[in-house]
Amino acid sequence: MDSATNLKLKPVARRRAYEEVVDQIRGEILAGRLKSGDRLPGERQLSDILGVSRASVREALRVLENAHIVRARTGTGADSGSIIVGEVGHSMGDVLLMHTALDHLSLDEVVGVRTALEGYGVEQAAARRTEEDLEVLEDLVRRMAEPSLSPVDFLELDSSFHLVLAKASANRLNAYLMESIREIIEAMLGDIFTGSADWSTMQAEMVAEHEEVYQAIAAQDGAKASILVQAHINKSHERIQ
Amino acid sequence: MDSATNLKLKPVARRRAYEEVVDQIRGEILAGRLKSGDRLPGERQLSDILGVSRASVREALRVLENAHIVRARTGTGADSGSIIVGEVGHSMGDVLLMHTALDHLSLDEVVGVRTALEGYGVEQAAARRTEEDLEVLEDLVRRMAEPSLSPVDFLELDSSFHLVLAKASANRLNAYLMESIREIIEAMLGDIFTGSADWSTMQAEMVAEHEEVYQAIAAQDGAKASILVQAHINKSHERIQ
Repeated sequence: MDSATNLKLKPVARRRAYEEVVDQIRGEILAGRLKSGDRLPGERQLSDILGVSRASVREALRVLENAHIVRARTGTGADSGSIIVGEVGHSMGDVLLMHTALDHLSLDEVVGVRTALEGYGVEQAAARRTEEDLEVLEDLVRRMAEPSLSPVDFLELDSSFHLVLAKASANRLNAYLMESIREIIEAMLGDIFTGSADWSTMQAEMVAEHEEVYQAIAAQDGAKASILVQAHINKSHERIQ
Repeated sequence: MDSATNLKLKPVARRRAYEEVVDQIRGEILAGRLKSGDRLPGERQLSDILGVSRASVREALRVLENAHIVRARTGTGADSGSIIVGEVGHSMGDVLLMHTALDHLSLDEVVGVRTALEGYGVEQAAARRTEEDLEVLEDLVRRMAEPSLSPVDFLELDSSFHLVLAKASANRLNAYLMESIREIIEAMLGDIFTGSADWSTMQAEMVAEHEEVYQAIAAQDGAKASILVQAHINKSHERIQ
């Protein structure tokens, strides 16, 4: 062979030890060898098995904790070692909020996705809602209509209303994304409504909108509920701008 | 005062040092004092300023790297210090994939959310697509129809088609979520189609479905495109089960 000009060498990707650890734990999860509730070996033991420093093990565990894949256990005795968690966690809101602050995402984009997810969610909820869901929703709408209600208290009932719909949609991914996105929108909007001159008019409109969504869900009319909730979100968004 | 029975004491939440570091950096981002492209102080300097160990600083940086908020810089000279990244990253697919493997999410739930997001995405894309988008889409459909095309090569064109739609939706959050969810679905499905007896029939059907979506987008008929793409996703999902 003459020279090495045909070699397809490229720069070695600098992979950190913690990334390897994350990948190996992910691999065990995907292969089904780690299940919800399982306990991982302790830091020291992981460090020995994997041949990396305890610091690298700890960095990997922090990343997995933050993604709500593992929950840390404190202490060093028999009870130490992280536990694989049992449900999708709520870390995404925080991350997306940072991305909006960095202008990687606009409020319009977030609201657009919210309409899509919530439209789908209520369509599912209309088919699956229980009598108990309906009672809770009805009660929330009734309390929203209280004449003396402050904007802050209204928003709390409003949040609960949408949360009940999210749960009733019986799609955990949709509920998780809807909740994360509501958190971002609320954080971006801050003290909306507060000090608004025509609060009582606005309140009456919003009560009517929630009432309509409730009625469509009670009637199991998913298509109508979906259209109404999307119109409601877009209108709320216009009101506060 | 007599006794302490009225005190509302509750267990102190064990907060780790790295969480405080993440919170402080998040706070700076939300306050607008850290922007895309900004460089954070180096590990040693952060450790001094924040009064925590370098290990805790490093754990916090790993968490923020994994959320694609910062990008690590190697070395210790003037170029060290992590950089605030410039766009939403693609870490969510990995996390959601682990949650599906742990049965925190089912394939049906993931597919349901995909129909919602992709329905919304193509509706937006129909209004915003450029002539160049249309050319790329048309070319992809043409290549999908090649009689000798293998299932693997078909899926690659299929992915590209949906990726172009995601970009054309001009909603970065929607595009990000759509891509993450496609990754999960592809990973969960594995070698679908491969070895299917009636591959050529299946191929013809799927080409026709993509062609219809393309036509609706070319005609700027968002409502029709949305319905067609949702039917296409549901049908694809049925085919492979």
